[in-house]
Amino acid sequence: MTGAGRVSLVGAGPGDPDLLTLRGARRLGEADLVLYDALASERMRPLAPRARWFYVGKRACRNSIDQDVLNRLMIKHASRGRHVVRLKCGDPFVFGRGGEEVLALSDAGVPVEVVPGLSTATAAPALAGIPVTHRGVAHDFTVVSGHLPPGHPDLLTDWDAVARLHGTLLLMMAVENAPAIADALLAGGRKPETPVAVVCDGSMPGERTVLSTLGSLAGDLERDEVQPPAIIVVGDVVAVARPEHYNDRRG
Amino acid sequence: MTGAGRVSLVGAGPGDPDLLTLRGARRLGEADLVLYDALASERMRPLAPRARWFYVGKRACRNSIDQDVLNRLMIKHASRGRHVVRLKCGDPFVFGRGGEEVLALSDAGVPVEVVPGLSTATAAPALAGIPVTHRGVAHDFTVVSGHLPPGHPDLLTDWDAVARLHGTLLLMMAVENAPAIADALLAGGRKPETPVAVVCDGSMPGERTVLSTLGSLAGDLERDEVQPPAIIVVGDVVAVARPEHYNDRRG
Repeated sequence: MTGAGRVSLVGAGPGDPDLLTLRGARRLGEADLVLYDALASERMRPLAPRARWFYVGKRACRNSIDQDVLNRLMIKHASRGRHVVRLKCGDPFVFGRGGEEVLALSDAGVPVEVVPGLSTATAAPALAGIPVTHRGVAHDFTVVSGHLPPGHPDLLTDWDAVARLHGTLLLMMAVENAPAIADALLAGGRKPETPVAVVCDGSMPGERTVLSTLGSLAGDLERDEVQPPAIIVVGDVVAVARPEHYNDRRG
Repeated sequence: MTGAGRVSLVGAGPGDPDLLTLRGARRLGEADLVLYDALASERMRPLAPRARWFYVGKRACRNSIDQDVLNRLMIKHASRGRHVVRLKCGDPFVFGRGGEEVLALSDAGVPVEVVPGLSTATAAPALAGIPVTHRGVAHDFTVVSGHLPPGHPDLLTDWDAVARLHGTLLLMMAVENAPAIADALLAGGRKPETPVAVVCDGSMPGERTVLSTLGSLAGDLERDEVQPPAIIVVGDVVAVARPEHYNDRRG
């Protein structure tokens, strides 16, 4: 590794450029190359006037190119002295594979930093007026990836234990498997009338919230034609929110 | 309610002004009055040149003045046409009482918005090099307030259920009750050798990380004289991190 090249893993937040951090914005301004994984991030181009932009993603924030190829791309450009910004939707360390990228880069001797970003898991509910904790209602919350259905052999999450929790559940990448997840939670003892909010396209122009319950979630998702990306909020905090009074957004 | 007054609940993030969002910084620039609850936030004063600053907090992000008094203060100033920024450490809706403030303000007819901030729960581990999720290690994480000890009558958290989870635990406001919480997790089946990292003063000049295990946590906290604020990370993701290679911070 020669030169002053380095990689910044920058959390882009939920999508609105306004929700990037000051440090993240400055890193974009310094970047020679931006590798981005969400189309939403294109709206951040004005913050990176010097940089080439290269798309490495697809919807739902997963990589379209192989992770090894991506790692080699970052190492190659940093080794040539470039400042590479790996712009990741949400937070790099919340289901972002940031840990894997940091290990690959540090193994290659490339200086790397992590600039945290707003995780969509909490930011999308906040923008929809839903507090993930609330005194007397929920003193804990759990963020779970729903990219694998309950029962899948590679699953690390114990859905029985999750069902027993009293706090708020925030399900990411869970639209496709939501019916199976709702069934697992009901089988684990959660009540069918548990309030659910599905926050779609959080922070983006098409943002909308679908209200439901655990028992009717599968049908409501189909009826409202919910597509990823969306955050599914399960718990009594959904009933605390009064969106009609709420976000008075003036940009 | 008359005039164009309003309240913005702005998440300040973990403390470093650089980790504020662009929207949060703009709201500070527009503010007439800033009500802040963490001394760390004073470093954000240059972002609010027009505003009066009024301290309503104490360490560990809890209010020193009564919540009702604080709500009335916000309502009074907004009713006089002022733009009030309620600057809250971390995220307003993650143990920030933001939900209560929104309800009080909307009941009074005061326009209110929430500007999400980086929660210290995930940002402090990220800055210390610890991914809260990691492929093959943890596909979920749970954020719990430790301000009440296990067994307390007002407790909403089911520590038995929390102990059964396979994912990462992030304990906030838990330094004081950490020995009792570690005992509860061990009693619930977690192994004494479970890795633990205590990230103290995340993002601040005095930031440091104390490595421990669940079985030795109580002694290590005492030996290292750990004081709040700190985030306690419990789980195998702690062993993924290699802080020595890690954050190359250049400001």
